[in-house]
Amino acid sequence: MAQHSSGPTPPYPMNRVSFLLPKLESMKQNNPNLSLLKIGVGSGDIFVSFAKAIPNGHVTGVDPDPSTLPRAKAVTEMAGLTNIQFLRGDSHRLPFADGTFDITFCHQMLAYISAPEVALREMLRVTKRGGIVAAREFDFETETFWPELPGLVKSHKLIGDTMNVRGITLTAGRQLLSWALKAGARRDEVTVSSSNLSFYTQSEKNARAQSIIDQVRNTMGKLGLRMGLTTEDDLEEMVSDWEKWTAKEDSTSTMLHGEILIQKRLE
Amino acid sequence: MAQHSSGPTPPYPMNRVSFLLPKLESMKQNNPNLSLLKIGVGSGDIFVSFAKAIPNGHVTGVDPDPSTLPRAKAVTEMAGLTNIQFLRGDSHRLPFADGTFDITFCHQMLAYISAPEVALREMLRVTKRGGIVAAREFDFETETFWPELPGLVKSHKLIGDTMNVRGITLTAGRQLLSWALKAGARRDEVTVSSSNLSFYTQSEKNARAQSIIDQVRNTMGKLGLRMGLTTEDDLEEMVSDWEKWTAKEDSTSTMLHGEILIQKRLE
Repeated sequence: MAQHSSGPTPPYPMNRVSFLLPKLESMKQNNPNLSLLKIGVGSGDIFVSFAKAIPNGHVTGVDPDPSTLPRAKAVTEMAGLTNIQFLRGDSHRLPFADGTFDITFCHQMLAYISAPEVALREMLRVTKRGGIVAAREFDFETETFWPELPGLVKSHKLIGDTMNVRGITLTAGRQLLSWALKAGARRDEVTVSSSNLSFYTQSEKNARAQSIIDQVRNTMGKLGLRMGLTTEDDLEEMVSDWEKWTAKEDSTSTMLHGEILIQKRLE
Repeated sequence: MAQHSSGPTPPYPMNRVSFLLPKLESMKQNNPNLSLLKIGVGSGDIFVSFAKAIPNGHVTGVDPDPSTLPRAKAVTEMAGLTNIQFLRGDSHRLPFADGTFDITFCHQMLAYISAPEVALREMLRVTKRGGIVAAREFDFETETFWPELPGLVKSHKLIGDTMNVRGITLTAGRQLLSWALKAGARRDEVTVSSSNLSFYTQSEKNARAQSIIDQVRNTMGKLGLRMGLTTEDDLEEMVSDWEKWTAKEDSTSTMLHGEILIQKRLE
């Protein structure tokens, strides 16, 4: 089922949205003009996938940080897509009328905000009756790596500590159902699932190690030093051990992600 | 893709073997008479599934503990299957000639033995060139539950502690690739994947809680008391909180499982 693209478009991020795709495809059969909202803009690559999946439909991205919008706009324009718009807006108070969208989606967003159940309530509000609200969030505490080099254990702890300082919910993945019920969904409207982010192949491992090393050398490392959560020596060990990990033939890493699909009741 | 059976046969355990099924199906196209070996007999339900999947093939189960064999035999006979045999045998020294089987499989077995890389080497030995060795093992440390009631946290710790005492590898899931390479597989012969054991629906949650409560009240609880790892009060709290967890509408639990498929090289 994996799809690969040779052009400037990134590979279809199947794993991240595969829990939503069967529902999206069946809804598209009845209505090719689906409207989809994604809360949180990020790099823009998920938007390319959605806009291609519903060529006769329309995709909207909303983000409280206006600095994310131009890059995502550029990525989708480069892919030749015109059925997308990006807007500034707060997930706790979405700038849309009730029942505007067929599908409302977020990914790695609820973990980062102060009131995820309020955002989910807003997502339910702006979704049409019979439509879908979908969310996927990491569960940081389930991260595994092998071999368990000391620098990897330290970087996992430092990332967790700095996320805690920033108010990020490390166990968002396991709390999705609970948040959905607090947001007003009925249990029988919610389908819970999970899938894993994994780093097994050499290219996956290279990308993962580089991303962690960048964090260690920049924002997270600096915040950790300032907060007294780490030392220069520990940061060096983290970089060195992620480099060693990448070079090992038997190394892997995984992280479980929670998923919910809420089918909004018709009345 | 879920299949349900209304008869005495348990539901097809899709999730546990789904990483192997596409390969099994494509091998069956070339050879309907596939021979499959499973190391570790357990309850017998996986054997029913395999024997039905290759009606013109043959399934063998081997287990060092002869007391497991009669029950599995009864389960498969009740399902009307005749293409199965069960034998006593040690995973560290399998009682078969080199290159006997097309597919050799184990599930929740390598975590429980002292030399998993020796067992994998044996599995590779008894598998034909071009055949498949497949394994799936839990990663106990990735267990999540919500809400995180104190009795659940205590039972997770007690199960982990007593498994450690018994020499069980809690992180087997993340070590599968490493064990496969130590057993002589080349990296390019191994495909790594993962999938999750999850408890989301009421019946899944009831079964999970009952299984943990049985362990707390019997073997594990008694071992824990004898080793000084727990108290009678803690054991009562575990039972009570698993009962509370089952009754909650927003409760869930998951555990990541590691998987490997080794395609044995032709020469």
